[in-house]
Amino acid sequence: MYEIYETKERIIEDNDAVAARVRAKMKAAGVFFVNLMASPGAGKTTLLKRTIESLPELKIGVMEADVDSDVDAATLAETGAKVIQLHTGGLCHMDADMTLRGLERFGTEGLDLVFLENVGNLVCPAEFDVGADLNVMILSVPEGDDKPLKYPLMFTVSQAALISKMDVAPVFDFDLDRFRANIAPLNPDMAVIPLSSVTGEGFDAWLEYLKGRLSEA
Amino acid sequence: MYEIYETKERIIEDNDAVAARVRAKMKAAGVFFVNLMASPGAGKTTLLKRTIESLPELKIGVMEADVDSDVDAATLAETGAKVIQLHTGGLCHMDADMTLRGLERFGTEGLDLVFLENVGNLVCPAEFDVGADLNVMILSVPEGDDKPLKYPLMFTVSQAALISKMDVAPVFDFDLDRFRANIAPLNPDMAVIPLSSVTGEGFDAWLEYLKGRLSEA
Repeated sequence: MYEIYETKERIIEDNDAVAARVRAKMKAAGVFFVNLMASPGAGKTTLLKRTIESLPELKIGVMEADVDSDVDAATLAETGAKVIQLHTGGLCHMDADMTLRGLERFGTEGLDLVFLENVGNLVCPAEFDVGADLNVMILSVPEGDDKPLKYPLMFTVSQAALISKMDVAPVFDFDLDRFRANIAPLNPDMAVIPLSSVTGEGFDAWLEYLKGRLSEA
Repeated sequence: MYEIYETKERIIEDNDAVAARVRAKMKAAGVFFVNLMASPGAGKTTLLKRTIESLPELKIGVMEADVDSDVDAATLAETGAKVIQLHTGGLCHMDADMTLRGLERFGTEGLDLVFLENVGNLVCPAEFDVGADLNVMILSVPEGDDKPLKYPLMFTVSQAALISKMDVAPVFDFDLDRFRANIAPLNPDMAVIPLSSVTGEGFDAWLEYLKGRLSEA
């Protein structure tokens, strides 16, 4: 089971100041907070499902942010993870204030790791620091290797790019070297992890990366 | 060659009133205006390229709206169509005022048909009437047949849904009947046209649909 919570947007003066409060709150609680961003259909929910199932040693919570549905929360609740559905009331992103209120409503006691599945969109979510310890984006193979040229901010604010749906790479013209060349001027330190949530290819590298960041926190 | 024009957003009181001005202006000029919306990587530019090449009898113009790149304008300029690149300055959508100023800058004299390739996004572009005669959205097969549940407004304001990348349908679990069932409560009259801009499958149906709407205008 999971709750549906209408976050809506409040006019706030300083998103970054609220993001800093989120970060301090989560640090004090000993919870690692990951903001997951991607286009619609890139595979955020499927990735989260397999990630949760692959890490039974961790207590994981998921805040699902959507415009106004709860399809993904229902899917993730099946894993047994603690899940809340946030509704943005039409907005295309979460900001720090909405995130803070979502976390307060959710309750993070006893959790090791919380994922925010942001609204499906490569533009607006990149513009708002939500106070996460780690920003991860997913780009699916069918979307194409030129996306850093078109959505540069997303590839600048994220520390890792997961290239999803690698199982269908043979039928698409996605060139990992060309993708890396496109992100190099934006974010030379970006981790690039090709994987498939269906076959599990590359998933160990993602889990190792995530656990590495968690252990450094 | 094509120009790059920074549209930016002005604070305007009534988007719908400006949209009505766009519609009146285009009607007076005898130009049919199509607003094309989709997620990043759904295949908007590839579809436009094949559409332009398939309709040599029509004089077609394209206004490419992007956050701040001009990758797609360069691709479309190769077709010989009249092309302008609009930059939204970080915004995730075009509104009616930005569209009106874009059209004035572009110049539609002598054109039969103008496409606006909206910013890649299933949320914000749906919220702003840009004054088009026809709103068309593309959903690519890899994005999944559940998207109407998650982005209902986009499937409500568009008159047609083009299901792109049908050539890769065999490797994805996309069910056209399930998709139609998902849009039925939102938009029972929506035209659903499965196609592939690579193989040309279904393209005749799309061209017939487009020419039909054009002849009614």
